[in-house]
Amino acid sequence: MKKLLLASTSTLYGQSYLEYLLPQLNDFFSHATTITFIPYARPGGISHDAYTELVATAFSKIDKKVVGLHDFEDPLEGIAHAEALFTGGGNTFLLVQQLHNLELMQPLRDKINHGTPYLGTSAGSNIAGPSMKTTNDMPIVHPPTFMTLGVVNFNLNPHYLDPDPNSTHKGETRETRIREFHQLNTTPVIGLREGNYILVNGNQSTLKGTGTARIFEAGKSPYESSQIPNF
Amino acid sequence: MKKLLLASTSTLYGQSYLEYLLPQLNDFFSHATTITFIPYARPGGISHDAYTELVATAFSKIDKKVVGLHDFEDPLEGIAHAEALFTGGGNTFLLVQQLHNLELMQPLRDKINHGTPYLGTSAGSNIAGPSMKTTNDMPIVHPPTFMTLGVVNFNLNPHYLDPDPNSTHKGETRETRIREFHQLNTTPVIGLREGNYILVNGNQSTLKGTGTARIFEAGKSPYESSQIPNF
Repeated sequence: MKKLLLASTSTLYGQSYLEYLLPQLNDFFSHATTITFIPYARPGGISHDAYTELVATAFSKIDKKVVGLHDFEDPLEGIAHAEALFTGGGNTFLLVQQLHNLELMQPLRDKINHGTPYLGTSAGSNIAGPSMKTTNDMPIVHPPTFMTLGVVNFNLNPHYLDPDPNSTHKGETRETRIREFHQLNTTPVIGLREGNYILVNGNQSTLKGTGTARIFEAGKSPYESSQIPNF
Repeated sequence: MKKLLLASTSTLYGQSYLEYLLPQLNDFFSHATTITFIPYARPGGISHDAYTELVATAFSKIDKKVVGLHDFEDPLEGIAHAEALFTGGGNTFLLVQQLHNLELMQPLRDKINHGTPYLGTSAGSNIAGPSMKTTNDMPIVHPPTFMTLGVVNFNLNPHYLDPDPNSTHKGETRETRIREFHQLNTTPVIGLREGNYILVNGNQSTLKGTGTARIFEAGKSPYESSQIPNF
């Protein structure tokens, strides 16, 4: 049975990396001793090694080992033998370009569909949906396609931000951007605020964390929900 | 001689569309009676017609006529006969996809290089640089390439925002995003705040409006400047 934990952010303000998720991750990864980490999104441009070290430090607190997928000579082998998977945040364009160039999208999809637990934060959550078209990131590289894993039937907008009623800035709000997406696409979008995450068990998705999520469906007004609708 | 006006935003808070730019535009477009408008970026998903009407209303205040490029049976003809050009803001991915699909990028580049005055706001300014890789927009469609006009030798980041020192939000700041861009690209980037615009005359670029711009060069710390450096 498919098992995913899709978080808006890896880190809450004033906390250490993954800190707020560790109790939940202890349970989520209870059957795994080693987590295979996909570091390709390189937040702030850090190296694969440095990123993997950061992740290993966090997971050592719940006695899990971490191996970086970049450390396998053949990353396909790394995925095939993974007990558990984690894709960290950073730049979604870079992450998706790497996964496509290395032809890992389909093996990763199959692995998740066969029940290997998958954790995503930010960009790593973005790629669980049918496309990366609702990322907030800058297009610093050109992936051959924006199609992603599609292991859930909705797109995510991580780090979701409500419009600031006092703002004088004229750049688009997150809501305007998602409305533009729905002029040309029909996939539902979950605006997932920091502190929230989605637990997926088979075909059942549950919203966890604090407060509601903002749900966007094509042709409807956006609305707040404490549940993930059955789209 | 190349002549461009590249603005961060079409509209300042509390003002009408293009209001703050009209005195400058009266001068910039002094030799043109009709402006050919490229509406493909469709801000908020509005139609080409509605967008062109908004632009025509603004330009009527300085006695300029506006024709939408979408109204030409052959948009190549529309560009070939343009006295002056304006590309409005909206979604940069949609704009760039349309320009590439209609094979307009090269004709537009040639037209600008031969001296037809070009106004860009937001997404319309973004495409003046070598690539659209420093846009803030959502990738709602997949353009065949991110390469753009390259009529100036720097990229723009319109609606530039300084990091908010009081923010508790963990999404990337604009500065972090541009740093990620420079891990993989060498084009200099101008962070252009709302209210600022760049006047290009031949190979001379001048910063206009209020205050300084934030300049990002690969391998250097970002800095403030009241001039556009000769990259």
